[in-house]
Amino acid sequence: MATTQFNPTCSKPHLHSSQLSFLSRTLPKRRHCSFAPFHRTQHASISCSVAPNEVQVPAVKTQDPKSKPECYGVFCLTYDLRAEEETRSWKKLISIAVSGAAGMIANHLLFKLASGEVFGPDQPIALKLLGSERSIQALEGVAMELEDSLFPLLREVSIGIDPYEVFQDAEWALLIGAKPRGPGMERSALLDINGQIYAEQGRALNAVASRNVKVIIVGNPCNTNALICLKNAPNIPAKNFHALTRLDENRAKCQLALKAGVFYDKVSNMTIWGNHSTTQVPDFLNARIDGLPVKEVVKDHKWLEEEFTEKVQKRGGVLIQKWGRSSAASTSVSIVDAMRSLITPTPEGDWFSSGVYSSGNPYGIAEDIVFSMPCRSKGDGDYELVRDVIFDDYLRQRIAKTEAELLAEKRCVAHLTGEGIAVCDLPGDTMLPGEM
Amino acid sequence: MATTQFNPTCSKPHLHSSQLSFLSRTLPKRRHCSFAPFHRTQHASISCSVAPNEVQVPAVKTQDPKSKPECYGVFCLTYDLRAEEETRSWKKLISIAVSGAAGMIANHLLFKLASGEVFGPDQPIALKLLGSERSIQALEGVAMELEDSLFPLLREVSIGIDPYEVFQDAEWALLIGAKPRGPGMERSALLDINGQIYAEQGRALNAVASRNVKVIIVGNPCNTNALICLKNAPNIPAKNFHALTRLDENRAKCQLALKAGVFYDKVSNMTIWGNHSTTQVPDFLNARIDGLPVKEVVKDHKWLEEEFTEKVQKRGGVLIQKWGRSSAASTSVSIVDAMRSLITPTPEGDWFSSGVYSSGNPYGIAEDIVFSMPCRSKGDGDYELVRDVIFDDYLRQRIAKTEAELLAEKRCVAHLTGEGIAVCDLPGDTMLPGEM
Repeated sequence: MATTQFNPTCSKPHLHSSQLSFLSRTLPKRRHCSFAPFHRTQHASISCSVAPNEVQVPAVKTQDPKSKPECYGVFCLTYDLRAEEETRSWKKLISIAVSGAAGMIANHLLFKLASGEVFGPDQPIALKLLGSERSIQALEGVAMELEDSLFPLLREVSIGIDPYEVFQDAEWALLIGAKPRGPGMERSALLDINGQIYAEQGRALNAVASRNVKVIIVGNPCNTNALICLKNAPNIPAKNFHALTRLDENRAKCQLALKAGVFYDKVSNMTIWGNHSTTQVPDFLNARIDGLPVKEVVKDHKWLEEEFTEKVQKRGGVLIQKWGRSSAASTSVSIVDAMRSLITPTPEGDWFSSGVYSSGNPYGIAEDIVFSMPCRSKGDGDYELVRDVIFDDYLRQRIAKTEAELLAEKRCVAHLTGEGIAVCDLPGDTMLPGEM
Repeated sequence: MATTQFNPTCSKPHLHSSQLSFLSRTLPKRRHCSFAPFHRTQHASISCSVAPNEVQVPAVKTQDPKSKPECYGVFCLTYDLRAEEETRSWKKLISIAVSGAAGMIANHLLFKLASGEVFGPDQPIALKLLGSERSIQALEGVAMELEDSLFPLLREVSIGIDPYEVFQDAEWALLIGAKPRGPGMERSALLDINGQIYAEQGRALNAVASRNVKVIIVGNPCNTNALICLKNAPNIPAKNFHALTRLDENRAKCQLALKAGVFYDKVSNMTIWGNHSTTQVPDFLNARIDGLPVKEVVKDHKWLEEEFTEKVQKRGGVLIQKWGRSSAASTSVSIVDAMRSLITPTPEGDWFSSGVYSSGNPYGIAEDIVFSMPCRSKGDGDYELVRDVIFDDYLRQRIAKTEAELLAEKRCVAHLTGEGIAVCDLPGDTMLPGEM
C-alpha cells in the first residue's frame, strides 16, 4: 500500500515553494491542485440541421435560433403545447441533462427517457446532451436517431460540450461520462482524472442547473465522483446527489432468486452498502424472499457469506467475457429504476439502495462521504434513510471495510473537494471490471 | 448489367449434367441450388445457469429441466401466474422469437419488449433468442442482462442456434439476423447468402411456429428475404409476413416536418412504396401535414421531387458517418412502431407502411412480391391495404422502378422460392448503406 500525493493532470501547483520542496524530498511523484470551484471552461457547440432558408413556416412558429443556440434539427422548432387538445393536459416540460451522451449506456437510456418509460405519457421531455469535442459528431448522430424515432413526448434536444450551457435549468442530471482506465493507469490517477470531470460538472450544476436538480452519478468511481460533484455544488442540497448502486442491487436480487429457486420479483429489501466497487456489501441479513428473511429461505449460509457477494461483484466481468461489451443495457435499466424509485412512492415495507451523502445517517457510518444505503421515497424526488435495519458482526465488518475504502478515496481527492492536499493511501484495487 | 446465374454457397447442384454443361459454356460463374423446403439442420444449444444442486425449492416449484431444455438462468423456473393476486389478471404468456439476438438492434429491442413497452403492463413475455454458433456466448450475455434487469413481465428467456427449436410456438418472429456484406461481395451473392438464411427460417417457422405467427423481417435485403421466408412457409398465411420499412417511413415524416417547420407529429399518411433500398418511394403526394396535402404546405416542389427522397434514403449513411455505427436504436424503435401498428387500431384517416405480400393489391403493382404499401389495422394483428390513395405520373414512374428492382431480385432468388433456376439481372446497386 503506497502512500502518494498525486495529481497528474493539474498543472498549476498552489502550494508554497517550501511545501513543495519538502514534498519533493519525501515523495517521488506528486503534484497538487487547488480547489477552484468556479473556474469556467469556454467550449461551446452549436448545431442545428435546419438551415433558415430550408424552413417554411405554416401554422407553427419556429423560434429565433439565437435564443436557443444549441438545439438540434426538428427540435429547433417551438410549439405551444397548450394550443392542442391532445397536449393541453400534459405536465410542464422537464429538462434532463445527460453526460457521456454519445456512449452506449446513454444510447439505451436516452430512448427510454424519450419514450415516456420513466416519467409517463403526459410528461414532455427536453434532453440536453453533453459530450466531448471528440464525440460531438457522434452526439449529432444520437440526435438524428432521436429525431427519426418520432417520440411524441420528446420536445427539445440540444447538444453541446460545455456543461455550463448544457446543464442550464436541468431538473435531472444523469452523469454517465467518465474516462475509462487506460492500460497501466494507477487507480489514483483514474480517481483524479474523473474527479476533475466531476468537479467541473459540479461547478456547472451549481452555477446554472435548477436549484433542486436531482443528480445521478454513474461514471466511476461513482461514489467518490458524487462526493466531488456535490462538494463543488454548495448551492444544491447534498441530498440531491446519488451514486448509482442500483445495478448492484438488481444483480444481488437476481442471484438470491436463482439460489432460492424463485422468480426475482420475490426478493425485496435488498441493500447495497458502501462503495460501488468490489468492497460493496450486498446485505443478505436484511433482504427478504417472499417476505421471509433470506437466511430462513436459503439455508446454505456458507454460500451467502462466501459466494453470494462475489457473484454480485463479478457479474460485470463475466458479462464482458461472454458478451464482449460492458453492461450498457442493464445499467440503463437500473438508471431508470433509480429515477422511478425517487418519483414513485416506495412500496410499503420495501426499500431501494442508493449511494447518498452520509452525514446524519443513523447507522454510525462515517459522515461526509457518499455511501450506498437503504432509502425510501414518498415519490417527490426526495428520500429518507430506512431505520429498521439490523446488523450483525459479519455485516458490520464488511461495512467497515467499504467505509475505509471510501475514506481513503476521499483523502485521495481532497484537492478536488476543497479539503486541502490529496493523500493517496488507497487499499488494494477494487474497481469493478468493465464498469464505466 | 451482367446476367449471371449464381449461387456461391450452394454445394449440391441439382441440375442435370447436360444443363450444367450448357451453362458452364455460357456463364463463367454459376452454381445452382434446388428448393429444399423441409431440410432441417441439427444444431442445438442448451444453456441454463442454474445447476440442479444450486437450487433450493421453497414455495415455488422448478420445472423438470428436460422438458424445457433451452431456458436460461432464473428463467428456467416456472411459476403459476394464476396463483398470485397481482398477476392473476394478466393475459396469457406471449412467445416472441428474435433472430440476430446478439446484435445491436436486438440489444435495444429485447429490453423494450421485456419492459412491456409494446404489449402493455398485463402481457407476460417469453423471449426466444436465436443466434449462431459464433454468437452463442454473446447470447448468454444478453440473457444475463435480461436477468439483471428484473423485468416483472419477462417470464421466459431461452437461447439457441437451431430455428426449429427456438421458433417453437412463436407468436411473433422478429427476424433481424443477416450476414453483412463483405468487401467486394456482389449483391447477388449477398441476396443468396441471406436468402439461404431466410429460406431456412421460413421452413422452421412453417414446421414449429404458431399457425398465425406474425413475422417481421428486418435483415436485408428485407423485402426479398421476406418473400423467400413466406415461400418456404406455405402453411402460414403470406399476409403474416412483413418487411420492415417503418424506419424509412419515420425518417420521411421527420424530413417533411423539418422542411415544413412543424413538429413531426403533424405529418400523417406517409407511405413508403416498394423496396427497402435506394429505389424506395417516400410518397409526398398522399402524405399530409396538419391534415393538408404536403404539396399545399411545402411549396418547394422541386425539393420534394429531387431532394426529399434522397434525404430519406441517405439518412442511414449520414448517420454512420457521424455516429460510426448503424442506426440500431431508431431501427429498434421502428420495429416497436411496426408491431404496435398491428396490435392497436390505426387512427381514423391515417395509415402506416409495411412491406407486405403484393398478391391481390388494388394498385396494379406486380403480384407475388413483397412490396411496401399503405396499411391499416383493426388492432388484431392483421391489416388491410388502403384504397383511397392517388397516383400521378411521377409517383407511378418511381413505383415502376422499385417494382422492377424487386422483380429482378425475385428472379435472382428463384432457387430459394421454389421457382426454378435463379437468374440474376439486377439493376444497379441499391442497397442502403449500413443497414443490416
